[in-house]
Amino acid sequence: MAHFRYLSFLTDYGLEDGFVAACHGVSARIAPHADIIDVTHLIPPGDIRRGAAVLAQTVPYLPAAVHVAVVDPGVGTARRGIAVAAGDSVFIGPDNGLLSWAVTAAGGAARAFSLTNRDLWLTRVTPTFHGRDMFMPVAAHLAADAELAAAGQEIDVAGLATLPAPERMVRNFTAAGEVLTVDRFGNVQLSVTAADATEIGLKSGGTVLVRLGHRQLTLPYRDTFGAVGAGELVVYADSAGLVSVAVNGGSAAQRLGLPPGAQISITAIYQTIHP
Amino acid sequence: MAHFRYLSFLTDYGLEDGFVAACHGVSARIAPHADIIDVTHLIPPGDIRRGAAVLAQTVPYLPAAVHVAVVDPGVGTARRGIAVAAGDSVFIGPDNGLLSWAVTAAGGAARAFSLTNRDLWLTRVTPTFHGRDMFMPVAAHLAADAELAAAGQEIDVAGLATLPAPERMVRNFTAAGEVLTVDRFGNVQLSVTAADATEIGLKSGGTVLVRLGHRQLTLPYRDTFGAVGAGELVVYADSAGLVSVAVNGGSAAQRLGLPPGAQISITAIYQTIHP
Amino acid sequence: MAHFRYLSFLTDYGLEDGFVAACHGVSARIAPHADIIDVTHLIPPGDIRRGAAVLAQTVPYLPAAVHVAVVDPGVGTARRGIAVAAGDSVFIGPDNGLLSWAVTAAGGAARAFSLTNRDLWLTRVTPTFHGRDMFMPVAAHLAADAELAAAGQEIDVAGLATLPAPERMVRNFTAAGEVLTVDRFGNVQLSVTAADATEIGLKSGGTVLVRLGHRQLTLPYRDTFGAVGAGELVVYADSAGLVSVAVNGGSAAQRLGLPPGAQISITAIYQTIHP
Repeated sequence: MAHFRYLSFLTDYGLEDGFVAACHGVSARIAPHADIIDVTHLIPPGDIRRGAAVLAQTVPYLPAAVHVAVVDPGVGTARRGIAVAAGDSVFIGPDNGLLSWAVTAAGGAARAFSLTNRDLWLTRVTPTFHGRDMFMPVAAHLAADAELAAAGQEIDVAGLATLPAPERMVRNFTAAGEVLTVDRFGNVQLSVTAADATEIGLKSGGTVLVRLGHRQLTLPYRDTFGAVGAGELVVYADSAGLVSVAVNGGSAAQRLGLPPGAQISITAIYQTIHP
Repeated sequence: MAHFRYLSFLTDYGLEDGFVAACHGVSARIAPHADIIDVTHLIPPGDIRRGAAVLAQTVPYLPAAVHVAVVDPGVGTARRGIAVAAGDSVFIGPDNGLLSWAVTAAGGAARAFSLTNRDLWLTRVTPTFHGRDMFMPVAAHLAADAELAAAGQEIDVAGLATLPAPERMVRNFTAAGEVLTVDRFGNVQLSVTAADATEIGLKSGGTVLVRLGHRQLTLPYRDTFGAVGAGELVVYADSAGLVSVAVNGGSAAQRLGLPPGAQISITAIYQTIHP
Repeated sequence: MAHFRYLSFLTDYGLEDGFVAACHGVSARIAPHADIIDVTHLIPPGDIRRGAAVLAQTVPYLPAAVHVAVVDPGVGTARRGIAVAAGDSVFIGPDNGLLSWAVTAAGGAARAFSLTNRDLWLTRVTPTFHGRDMFMPVAAHLAADAELAAAGQEIDVAGLATLPAPERMVRNFTAAGEVLTVDRFGNVQLSVTAADATEIGLKSGGTVLVRLGHRQLTLPYRDTFGAVGAGELVVYADSAGLVSVAVNGGSAAQRLGLPPGAQISITAIYQTIHP
């Protein structure tokens, strides 16, 4: 009986070469029963942090799977390849922190293995394409019939590389954090959570003071960008449960010049009611 | 027995985030038997008209399916979510006109339902991602085992939002219309049909006078762009049955500066034969 | 019994229109059992050589399949459509050289057929979209139950269009060639093979003199780009077995201004050991 019906696949390989297809082909040969859900292959080259954020926010909506993720600027160097069991899934990729946020979101690492069993790799492993030659074949074997423990030597889950959690702090009526990611629409996602927003007293329909660098903006806090006029800025809790800034019908990232990592804070404003 | 083997999926979500994958995951969990055909996810953000055109021109080549389309600048506001039966398929998306041209192409709306049955949604519906939380789960349930009528309250098909048909007029020996879309190659697709071209007396091998703004061009009318020299302009009936302007090996949109919506007319030219 | 479980699909159609999806739909209707592996659809419009290189480097990792490839600036003109048996697969596309390198990589053409049997096409074939109307339906019929010989008239494999092999020469301690392709990361892939590099005495850990135009660079030859410092240039044998130039964490194509076709040579440098 097959162990997993699904694989998921996230990389920075892009879509203009045949890299992703070669990996799909490797999986089709080893595990023809398995379906692959492509998460994205447009992570900016080498941007581990962006890959980790997209993976962690997508995996909760995927079925149980072997999740393969490869953003791997250290390919061919000493960094390990790993397979990590978490929740009902297995995560496979380089041990550089890429998997860490998704593993946490899946309930934390139960067991971890260093990919040392060459029997599960392609016969010929090139030093620059471990996605095709090592990670995908191991994943396909695990999806087909190999036991997780066959992936290689068991390692201490405490020794896995982890990315530091995004900065985030709540004090008095202010929540401070950083820009976590910017999506296709130019919506700016902060590390501040919807729960943080509630804690500082923000409610949909209210007003929020946003500080970024030396600038201050007073913006509406709403359920959705459609609640403000076209071209207007709005703050809201996004579909991943994080506070975000958007422009209705435009790009907040462009309007505000906010790249990932930028510092930002929000404060609930209470209107004084003059009698 | 499952109702539909296939879903199709068109959005403006882009490919650099995990949005499309999250929707695929939702479908995989509810309707693991179903295959998804991705139409495109690169509709320019919020461009309902472009989405409607691509959907209407692609659906005739797809198998019977639940077609999910989401270009939804009004997400989270009062606009309804709908499921519309047309031909052998069901169309699901926001009631903002996006589906209307494809529904017409499929033979017109037979029945329509407002998506009001929360039992078919995800447990938690966010105000900004109805594709993942509402449209896709409803579609997957319909593909799996739910009856269309379970989607929600039946509504009058006459009350569905529709996009106005693209402008188009034939008079004397002239067909006038507008630029409908521009494809990857820079081919400029008009709202004027191949039948219109025939009606005004255009035949492959003939010559056509093209008027755009204050400019006039005399161009060859051929079966395909390969019939003219490299870098030359040509008018032809495209693979969707619409009159188009192309540059062989180049971009007509760039050459002519023709964005969607631009007015254009074509007139058949009859060469006088001097004895 | 079905002949092929898999199709593969490479084009220059792009991803912003519904062209690829229409072809998937055609296949789903004719061969619902078949899975399609998309190789890439982002070949630059009309770039046959780039399409041929990507196809040839990807197919060795795909399962036995009907491989459909369409980069077809001559669509609708006199160029033939062909089906070529090679190895355990069938290649389908225009007879313009696009398939030739992949066919060679698969062991060479065993038999070839001109696509003249209209029974395997869509009922209506448009002059500008043979991918949807001819190549994909023929491929799906071959995957489902048609015999290869049903595709049309058998033709001499010696008469198939072929792209000239990339330039490449080894003399003394120098290997000369050209830039074959540039990938998403800006890695510059040469026509010079890893075997050529060995023949001229290059070994990982060594040093290589690179000549391009009037410039000369002395670079490290390593197993992987991760072996040099961030931002540094490196020469290595890539995952397709070809010598490549990369910048660790950057784009060598941009740094060196090396487009496909540029001439380049490499020479092994032997360090003199001073006693």
